[in-house]
Amino acid sequence: MSVIVLGTVALDTVKTPFGTRKHILGGSAVHFAMSARLFTKVSLVAIIGRDFPAKYIKFLRKKGLILTSLIIEKGKSFKWEGEYRGDLNTAFTLNTEFGVLSAFKPRVSEEEKKIKHIFLANVDPDIQRHLLERMYSPHLVGLDSMNYWINNKRRSLLGLLKKVDIYVANDQEARALSQEHNLIKAAKYLRSLGPSMILIKKGEHGVLFYCDKFIFSLPAYPTDKVIDPTGAGDTFAGAFMGYLAKVNKINTTSLKKAILYGTIAASFNIEDFGLNKTANLSLHSLEERLNRFRNIVMF
Amino acid sequence: MSVIVLGTVALDTVKTPFGTRKHILGGSAVHFAMSARLFTKVSLVAIIGRDFPAKYIKFLRKKGLILTSLIIEKGKSFKWEGEYRGDLNTAFTLNTEFGVLSAFKPRVSEEEKKIKHIFLANVDPDIQRHLLERMYSPHLVGLDSMNYWINNKRRSLLGLLKKVDIYVANDQEARALSQEHNLIKAAKYLRSLGPSMILIKKGEHGVLFYCDKFIFSLPAYPTDKVIDPTGAGDTFAGAFMGYLAKVNKINTTSLKKAILYGTIAASFNIEDFGLNKTANLSLHSLEERLNRFRNIVMF
Repeated sequence: MSVIVLGTVALDTVKTPFGTRKHILGGSAVHFAMSARLFTKVSLVAIIGRDFPAKYIKFLRKKGLILTSLIIEKGKSFKWEGEYRGDLNTAFTLNTEFGVLSAFKPRVSEEEKKIKHIFLANVDPDIQRHLLERMYSPHLVGLDSMNYWINNKRRSLLGLLKKVDIYVANDQEARALSQEHNLIKAAKYLRSLGPSMILIKKGEHGVLFYCDKFIFSLPAYPTDKVIDPTGAGDTFAGAFMGYLAKVNKINTTSLKKAILYGTIAASFNIEDFGLNKTANLSLHSLEERLNRFRNIVMF
Repeated sequence: MSVIVLGTVALDTVKTPFGTRKHILGGSAVHFAMSARLFTKVSLVAIIGRDFPAKYIKFLRKKGLILTSLIIEKGKSFKWEGEYRGDLNTAFTLNTEFGVLSAFKPRVSEEEKKIKHIFLANVDPDIQRHLLERMYSPHLVGLDSMNYWINNKRRSLLGLLKKVDIYVANDQEARALSQEHNLIKAAKYLRSLGPSMILIKKGEHGVLFYCDKFIFSLPAYPTDKVIDPTGAGDTFAGAFMGYLAKVNKINTTSLKKAILYGTIAASFNIEDFGLNKTANLSLHSLEERLNRFRNIVMF
């Protein structure tokens, strides 16, 4: 089974205590795709400007991603500039240039409209809805968002939440949307908004999964090598959705396994700038680290 | 095997969003003992003033704690007043009255000097050293401290760390002492100060255990019932040390099991004010919740 992801393809400028990288390939859809591709075919729905470096498009194609629905539009590509300080836990956005993203209306090929596993990565909820409404037979729909939309497009977001199966949020977003500090209370509240599954990413503190049938809590892979956390959440979601699409089964076992793969994929992402780590990641390396992780968390 | 704990026996005044309790029984040694007693005999080394309510002493005795080395001195008992706001993660100390604690020199009975499992709960590191030097055959020594001593008695604390086996710290303390934000780096640094085992408590985010042989990471028991976290760390340490004293074995299996018991004991402590939950806790209830926890974290 394939996965289709809607999101951004961006040029990121990232400052961390370990250095600065200018206009490197990034964006929610790209980070998602880079881990999802380890499990399944990935179609990318996004927009870029004419200024987008040809080498990056070539790179995405070489990684096996399907770019049929990647629109190249007259104008500037989406650019994000952010900085991580001391603890590398929170990104401070220094600058955002929306460019062609401002007028983005996803267009999807007929073939791709049949894809059943859909991930709506972080973009304007109206754009997310626009895509979802065009899909023929959604089987599993995941949704990510961010504080900006929670604050500025709350109604659109709430409408959309009724139509998705999994809401993926980080702890700050879960708290902002639910107005609950306690994450179990937050998850219960978010569940009441529609999605049958809630996945709260807590960065260095791991992840909490909530559904009516069970709760699953997992720490992060402990590492002292944190270089650039940009895209860690999308990398998590990519492996999570990719694995579920591959096995095409939603049950306690497959969900826990998907969360494990997400955790491990994210742990690679943060170890270097941008896609440096995940672009060269193999399923074999993922499995190897997963086995080490087992010893760290199992008893 | 018995456990001996040095620490405070206090009168706590606690404000949380759920209410206020005035001069309730608390203190590091008491919270520790309340969970350690589920596994083993517990000797308490502490000091109280003449103002200490007789009903509390009676209560401690009724709980089976050995009070031979509980000194009752002319003067006021140690009092702590704290408040938890919104997230209930951090205690804001409103007032501390040291009273008789200021001049505390632990006195231990000959019989108790033979105890091999020793926990030095949070008091002045010079008092901790004073006790440790009097013990005849330490087999496993745990140490807790706090930011105040890290900042104001650093040299004493560093000297003491060379003489203990397990350093138990919360994440803030681990970061303050190591000057490392990343907790793996912090644990490695703390390991280099002497203790062969480092246990970092992360509150709602669980616990990280580090030793040369292995790392163990465990999330907290997910609960939406957090009323008063005072003493959660000591409750954790009590079950941890109590279990290790009971089995009298230090290996990967026993350490992981001890951390599990600590996690579960702490999850009860936070569900009500002071000792309300842990005073009535049975090993059976602890085991029951541990089994539920298994399903939440195992895959």
